[in-house]
Amino acid sequence: MKTAKIGLLGFGNVGGGTYKILTQNKKIIEKRTGVTPEVIKILKRSKNKKRLMDADSSLLTEDPDDIIQNPEVDIVVEMIGGIEPATSFMVQAMKAGKHVVSANKAAIAANYRLLTNTAKEYNVEFLYEASVAGGIPVLSSLTGPLEANNFVEIMGILNGTTNYILTKMTDENLPYDEVLKEAQEKGFAEADPTADVEGIDAANKLSILIALAFDKHIHPDSIPTVGITGISSDDIKAAEESGKKIKLIGKASLRDGMVEYMVAPTLLDKNHPLAGVSNEFNAVYVTGDMVGELMFYGRGAGPLPTGSAICGDIINIMKNRF
Amino acid sequence: MKTAKIGLLGFGNVGGGTYKILTQNKKIIEKRTGVTPEVIKILKRSKNKKRLMDADSSLLTEDPDDIIQNPEVDIVVEMIGGIEPATSFMVQAMKAGKHVVSANKAAIAANYRLLTNTAKEYNVEFLYEASVAGGIPVLSSLTGPLEANNFVEIMGILNGTTNYILTKMTDENLPYDEVLKEAQEKGFAEADPTADVEGIDAANKLSILIALAFDKHIHPDSIPTVGITGISSDDIKAAEESGKKIKLIGKASLRDGMVEYMVAPTLLDKNHPLAGVSNEFNAVYVTGDMVGELMFYGRGAGPLPTGSAICGDIINIMKNRF
Repeated sequence: MKTAKIGLLGFGNVGGGTYKILTQNKKIIEKRTGVTPEVIKILKRSKNKKRLMDADSSLLTEDPDDIIQNPEVDIVVEMIGGIEPATSFMVQAMKAGKHVVSANKAAIAANYRLLTNTAKEYNVEFLYEASVAGGIPVLSSLTGPLEANNFVEIMGILNGTTNYILTKMTDENLPYDEVLKEAQEKGFAEADPTADVEGIDAANKLSILIALAFDKHIHPDSIPTVGITGISSDDIKAAEESGKKIKLIGKASLRDGMVEYMVAPTLLDKNHPLAGVSNEFNAVYVTGDMVGELMFYGRGAGPLPTGSAICGDIINIMKNRF
Repeated sequence: MKTAKIGLLGFGNVGGGTYKILTQNKKIIEKRTGVTPEVIKILKRSKNKKRLMDADSSLLTEDPDDIIQNPEVDIVVEMIGGIEPATSFMVQAMKAGKHVVSANKAAIAANYRLLTNTAKEYNVEFLYEASVAGGIPVLSSLTGPLEANNFVEIMGILNGTTNYILTKMTDENLPYDEVLKEAQEKGFAEADPTADVEGIDAANKLSILIALAFDKHIHPDSIPTVGITGISSDDIKAAEESGKKIKLIGKASLRDGMVEYMVAPTLLDKNHPLAGVSNEFNAVYVTGDMVGELMFYGRGAGPLPTGSAICGDIINIMKNRF
């Protein structure tokens, strides 16, 4: 059986989840692809972080070049997050002839054209299903089975932390500060929650959705973005009284040939499919000119859902390039 | 630009929808694939049926061999429905070296191994996204971005007619017979509704989902199937009073290494994502060992949603084989 040699850049939550899937589900992956996935090197920076699955110390390195410039590596999986050095690592890996899989919405949203053009120039695959809505296969659907459509609108609950906070504020009638604190204690929100609660994370994901659906790169800084820090219990009550729910929505619509976009708390009718998406779940509501309305729903974060999407991209490359 | 020459077997509702998409969205398809889709022949049997889009009479034929045995045709799209002669047509087309796209759940569920094995033997593509849940890209997701998962359970609202009837019975408190009659008048139910209301259509789709998720072909006749004809207004009321909804569910679960399956009216908790799927909409709820729970929601029937899935398959072939 052929072997795909994989290097993991990053070994935190998502790296651990990805390694666990490639190890634990190796047999089913081999059966479905005819190729063996073999992780040959892992970039690990923090020495003592907990993760889902540990790896043999012979696989670990602290030098990114042991992966990016390693002639043995076929596929580089970038899971370190942040715009730099992640973008440079991905570009260098592509230039060294490696396929790249990434979960890094910030880097892709900021440098979409650079990354996709470099992949094209060096004839390597660049896949990033995990960067939007975690385990939900929405990017693959937009660029695969839905491609006969002109897309009309994309609306999404793209951030699990804020959806969890809004759900608790609504269901348990609690104020924002209290729910945020609880979410931080449970690990659903970061110690510094700014990127989530200010809508920045959602804007990164919306930027990627716009690029794929409308073939237009809008830098996330150019997306009008309002987070949920201004939402009060009174707002939530008022919404409920008028039969609506408040959700943090990233939305892009085609109007007269122009794409309009924004991230903002939005009143949705209680019967709208997105209104029923609760807690940490994500969902993307897509309207195509032919297929009509679709919704994709599932877990937008977490080591295993995100790892599932990453491994789906690895499988895609194994099927098409090995 | 390269050209993919397409023959359409069937020119009813779905055939008309598919032809409309290939014509109206030709530019976007060319841009996304680098290949021109060209319909060169259409099998039309009923002379005067209304459809979404008419075709030049030079394209029409009443002889299936003008498509199946036509050396010019690259891709045969089978949309005539029923088990035979559709299965024979597909097998003959594959043996003549043509890729086959089909929307025909009855033929695929009955002859899954014959059709997939013939495609493999003759090294042609055989794709059938439209056969389950119409425009919703669930089959492509199971066999693509979700392939790193062992599937644990698949549950679906797979038939729009019965979901429409149950929704009306629930929301408007009407008896089965009255709602069925109204659905027939509106075109949401066939004059002979047996295949829908007895669960046969859902069993066909469940058979295909089982084949893809669990690599096991269960003939639909072997799936325990109960339809909705026995559901009374009292049943619906009793369900509502206990905080539940009745939905016709096709379900397959892995338990101790065995796949269990059935189609039956099922009580769902009101908070289950499938409980919110109303009217003629379909949805498939998938649980994978890594990704957790996902739901795919959208239009399960209709010329354009079904045509969207068919054209997605055509695009897949154009990208991989041209």
